[in-house]
Amino acid sequence: MIALTGVRPTGELHLGNYFGAIKPLLDLQEKYVIFLFVADLHSLTTSCDIDTIKGNSQKLLAAFRALGFDPQKTIIWVQSEIPEVCELMYILSALTGFQYLHKGHAFKTACLENKNPTVALFLYPVLMAADILAFQADLVPVGVDQKQHLEICRDLAEKLRNMFGVETKIPEPLIMESTCAVPGVDGRKMSKSYKNTLPIFASVDEIVSIVRQVKTDSTPLGSPLNLENSVLGSYIKLLSKPEDYEKIKKEALAGNYGWGKIKEFVIELFLSKFSYAREKYVELLSDPAELWNQATEGAKIAKERARDFLGSILKRLNSHV
Amino acid sequence: MIALTGVRPTGELHLGNYFGAIKPLLDLQEKYVIFLFVADLHSLTTSCDIDTIKGNSQKLLAAFRALGFDPQKTIIWVQSEIPEVCELMYILSALTGFQYLHKGHAFKTACLENKNPTVALFLYPVLMAADILAFQADLVPVGVDQKQHLEICRDLAEKLRNMFGVETKIPEPLIMESTCAVPGVDGRKMSKSYKNTLPIFASVDEIVSIVRQVKTDSTPLGSPLNLENSVLGSYIKLLSKPEDYEKIKKEALAGNYGWGKIKEFVIELFLSKFSYAREKYVELLSDPAELWNQATEGAKIAKERARDFLGSILKRLNSHV
Repeated sequence: MIALTGVRPTGELHLGNYFGAIKPLLDLQEKYVIFLFVADLHSLTTSCDIDTIKGNSQKLLAAFRALGFDPQKTIIWVQSEIPEVCELMYILSALTGFQYLHKGHAFKTACLENKNPTVALFLYPVLMAADILAFQADLVPVGVDQKQHLEICRDLAEKLRNMFGVETKIPEPLIMESTCAVPGVDGRKMSKSYKNTLPIFASVDEIVSIVRQVKTDSTPLGSPLNLENSVLGSYIKLLSKPEDYEKIKKEALAGNYGWGKIKEFVIELFLSKFSYAREKYVELLSDPAELWNQATEGAKIAKERARDFLGSILKRLNSHV
Repeated sequence: MIALTGVRPTGELHLGNYFGAIKPLLDLQEKYVIFLFVADLHSLTTSCDIDTIKGNSQKLLAAFRALGFDPQKTIIWVQSEIPEVCELMYILSALTGFQYLHKGHAFKTACLENKNPTVALFLYPVLMAADILAFQADLVPVGVDQKQHLEICRDLAEKLRNMFGVETKIPEPLIMESTCAVPGVDGRKMSKSYKNTLPIFASVDEIVSIVRQVKTDSTPLGSPLNLENSVLGSYIKLLSKPEDYEKIKKEALAGNYGWGKIKEFVIELFLSKFSYAREKYVELLSDPAELWNQATEGAKIAKERARDFLGSILKRLNSHV
């Protein structure tokens, strides 16, 4: 059984990515083979700065491994290394009505925000469907915002079956409610575009500075602090064991901690949680050739699988064997 | 220097295809290496009957060779065998504005005619651009109706240069005025969708029946016939030497030929012009394995070239070497 996730190399991974995408996937390692790719082609929907995208892909490869994905067990690759996925995307586009795709919410939103969206942005749900179907993934962990896109993927799988008579899995979504549960430092959803993130691999100084600047209410020292529904409280809850969180919450309610102390807890818990990963990350990034070699190895395995599935369609079109 | 053409496997090649696409390409063989592909993926824009598409692809492979393309000199392949073209298409789609593509005339026309066009149809000019740029063709013979699409391809090549810093040729169009010069048997442009074609490889009975049914005016026998501006006259002009055409025209003007005689001339000239090709076609189709093997050999050569060009972009995104 395969669980598959792609992460766009948009810059540095943050706490929201970790709890929304990485952690749930790590938890699936026992039951599933994890297929994990750097979605560099998807990054082209918003940026054409390919050199920066490559740098970010490299960082993301390091991040995946630093956070606990072992390339001996997890298939890790960079999306653009497998052209077969794009051919499948094109074939799926022949099964996708133009009007149907035009109604996709992500594209609609993008049109409102962006005066000149690209064709690649329009194609986003079709490429995502190809990403999933090419590898015949069983399970796809997605955020609530991706639910509609997974529905499109399932629709297209049905069409492959009905219109081309191709045998295909219909992937199941694993909806990650927690994606929305990680607030940014300003209280909105944590997102790079809001510039409200806690980046996992930032320098200690940066982390300290970001946490210290989180806005709090003006509860005077010695008065009860309620951690529930506060940004800092959410971080402590995510980063510590339930019993430890309860202890801190109780002490805060008793008026024993000010916000300053709470911020120190957050910094401490954050750095301790990611201490191994942060060290490993620096080490991995010091040898880019090894990172890319491992990604190429992963791509070979993934490509075989994509060729198998695409082949089941292509043998109907050409002499593919 | 490379001249490239793709032909959709929509059924049987007709006289319009021959004079509009095949003949001009045959004439270029002295000066150019011809890259000639069966555009099966483009066929998916209008039909999802992949088994029929494959059958038509096979016929087209036979037709190319029967009409004089030698697979030892001409690179012949089936489009779907080269996934790299689709990855290039996706990359180009990131450089294509949605609104810009939406204004493409072919899609607009299709929207008017077809209530539910597919995304593949929308992508048509981008896939065409990838077809050309992947192989770094120098020259692309196109009908007047494809002029706008070649402009899109040239625009996208410029963008690859300017936005990605990729070295690429800007392909030159060779506008085939004659595409429009072959009238269908009803006087409109010859086109499979109008069902007014003279199919090169149809049975003798079919050819005879089609030509005999061409509508003519009611000039009585013995009266002068003017072949200029008549459908049958155009066929004679295309199928015979200029001096032979002039002779027939003169005799007709002198009242020596009725339309029945003119039709016999057309049938005779047609069957004699394509006599070798029609025989060869049947022979080639009797050995499909050989046809597909040759196409696979062609695909290998073409794929190398596509990988080279795509690689010049991909090395900027991943560890592609």
